[in-house]
Amino acid sequence: MNATQAELVDERAIDLPYKQNGRSIVAVDIGGTLAKVVHFVKNQNSAADAPSEQSSTGGCLNFHHFETQNIEMCVDFIRQLASKDSGIILKATGGGSYKFAHLLEATGVKCLEKEDEMDCLITGLSFLISEVKNEVFTYSDSLPIQYEVAGPPSSCRFPYLLVNIGSGVSILKVDSPSSFQRVSGSSLGGGTLWGLLKVLTRAETFDDMLKMSESGDNRTVDMMVGDIYGTDYSKVGLSASTIASSFGKVFRMPLSSSRDSDTENLQLNPSDVAKSLLFMVSNNIGQIAYLNAKVHNVKNIYFGGSYIRGHPETMRTLSFAVKYWSNSSMQAYFLRHESYLGALGAYLKGDQIQ
Amino acid sequence: MNATQAELVDERAIDLPYKQNGRSIVAVDIGGTLAKVVHFVKNQNSAADAPSEQSSTGGCLNFHHFETQNIEMCVDFIRQLASKDSGIILKATGGGSYKFAHLLEATGVKCLEKEDEMDCLITGLSFLISEVKNEVFTYSDSLPIQYEVAGPPSSCRFPYLLVNIGSGVSILKVDSPSSFQRVSGSSLGGGTLWGLLKVLTRAETFDDMLKMSESGDNRTVDMMVGDIYGTDYSKVGLSASTIASSFGKVFRMPLSSSRDSDTENLQLNPSDVAKSLLFMVSNNIGQIAYLNAKVHNVKNIYFGGSYIRGHPETMRTLSFAVKYWSNSSMQAYFLRHESYLGALGAYLKGDQIQ
Repeated sequence: MNATQAELVDERAIDLPYKQNGRSIVAVDIGGTLAKVVHFVKNQNSAADAPSEQSSTGGCLNFHHFETQNIEMCVDFIRQLASKDSGIILKATGGGSYKFAHLLEATGVKCLEKEDEMDCLITGLSFLISEVKNEVFTYSDSLPIQYEVAGPPSSCRFPYLLVNIGSGVSILKVDSPSSFQRVSGSSLGGGTLWGLLKVLTRAETFDDMLKMSESGDNRTVDMMVGDIYGTDYSKVGLSASTIASSFGKVFRMPLSSSRDSDTENLQLNPSDVAKSLLFMVSNNIGQIAYLNAKVHNVKNIYFGGSYIRGHPETMRTLSFAVKYWSNSSMQAYFLRHESYLGALGAYLKGDQIQ
Repeated sequence: MNATQAELVDERAIDLPYKQNGRSIVAVDIGGTLAKVVHFVKNQNSAADAPSEQSSTGGCLNFHHFETQNIEMCVDFIRQLASKDSGIILKATGGGSYKFAHLLEATGVKCLEKEDEMDCLITGLSFLISEVKNEVFTYSDSLPIQYEVAGPPSSCRFPYLLVNIGSGVSILKVDSPSSFQRVSGSSLGGGTLWGLLKVLTRAETFDDMLKMSESGDNRTVDMMVGDIYGTDYSKVGLSASTIASSFGKVFRMPLSSSRDSDTENLQLNPSDVAKSLLFMVSNNIGQIAYLNAKVHNVKNIYFGGSYIRGHPETMRTLSFAVKYWSNSSMQAYFLRHESYLGALGAYLKGDQIQ
């Protein structure tokens, strides 16, 4: 595959003008909550357009995701792809590639190859950073979404941290595309926020929770420095508007003795709860990312994983936490394909581009 | 005050055989959730026992706490003390000493002196470490509570971190009793746990929540590495029993459409929820403490604040987190008067012992 002309066509598909390797690959990354799939779709007219000396076929990388609890839908999708191309090879990564290996083997694919999750994350990230235009961006308050051009060359960016936020959080220090280690992690990730908000807001999907948070005011449930001091605590640099204790006002609220919805009894506004806990989880991950970057003497932090899903407030909070704790000496980066690092890495390992 | 013979009489009072300073002091530390009071109570027979050349009176330091939302009860308590001793001086610290200054001034005490919160924490901690026998202890799994003798001398212990966990968390690096700085903090503290558990378990007091957690099994609500992989993820050293995502199983649980109690609809066991979130908050604080200790090249970490309240599982989790992340190179210490560092510090500043 010649990837030098890989371009972002829309938020999902990545255009690959010349596909050189003859293998038909579908890649799946099965996490605790979501299963992500990457596969190649040929252009209808690509055979005619391709230079005659190359046995190549242009097309796009396509991206899909399924809930892991509905893994059968994901397996059906792979089975359909396999039914159209008997030579298809299935690359699988993530914990579910072990747990659900029997289901993947039953899809009828020619070959199932498992790849290490962390290895795939870094392979996918390296490709996105170095080969896909307009993939990497920074977030600034003044200009909501500011896209950064892919250059300078990826070799100038090492070392960096990858903070991958799915159900839980993995933090990897990356010295080169082939040299990295998982240095830390946290159990306080997307699964935590999704679980808490499911009970507390009754929203069914994570997108509903994010939408709900947009109109929320966390100050009705968070205890601010001003709530404790009545003013700033300026001696240690804490303004009155700093969150002193996430969800810290709720303990004081009177609880009715009836057995109706708990959140209603406490007069909790679901939007306020959603914003408070989104801030709580995002600030915490940003702080742990900063501390690990400090320990490992790294300045650039990439955030990936399905937790982010392009949500501006999430990126703003992660960016702000890194900027605040590092005194603006570190930079948070985001990716348009943040959810697909592992699946993309597994695909590329099958296609032998690294 | 001669403090060299200060001894722990029970979990609350500290015996002070010879009180040399003539000032009558009551000290209060008003935080976001709790107000803590320290005052001196003379022994009935101490005048007779005291060496005749000293104008001293033996007695005990007594400790009390009130909920900040019921600050009037705390103010009444101080008013009663002032009514028995017209010369009493009130030392006040914590955010509430500013917010509720008008209430404190109305108690009729002769003099209200405010002291900085962080300064008081360190003054109180230094006194407890260096002057009170059997105050400091470590927690080990093999021997549930292991008391450590106060020695070696406090000068050998610097630098250390103090991680003070109240509604929120403050982290201070201490180079000497008079040289320290607040290096970090977290909004994910006691107030967060208390607020979440109030809604999710309907327990009214934090002690009820802790008791509830003792019989819980967090694995019914937490997503473990084994739930994702079906086995260990041994390549990066994660066993199947590691928590991958706190509360991460709840998102998958079906939610009934009725408006009855949310936790009942989801078939959540309140004890399991209490244990899961206690682990979540304690693990997270332990990890942030470790990372700050690493950044500041410190080996000893003292945990204080009303969050701990002598609860074995909380101390076990904090200790384990420090041990796990530091590869046993750092040590977590606990204190029998963990909730009263600030109030004790304010008292001592009044008594001019430091």
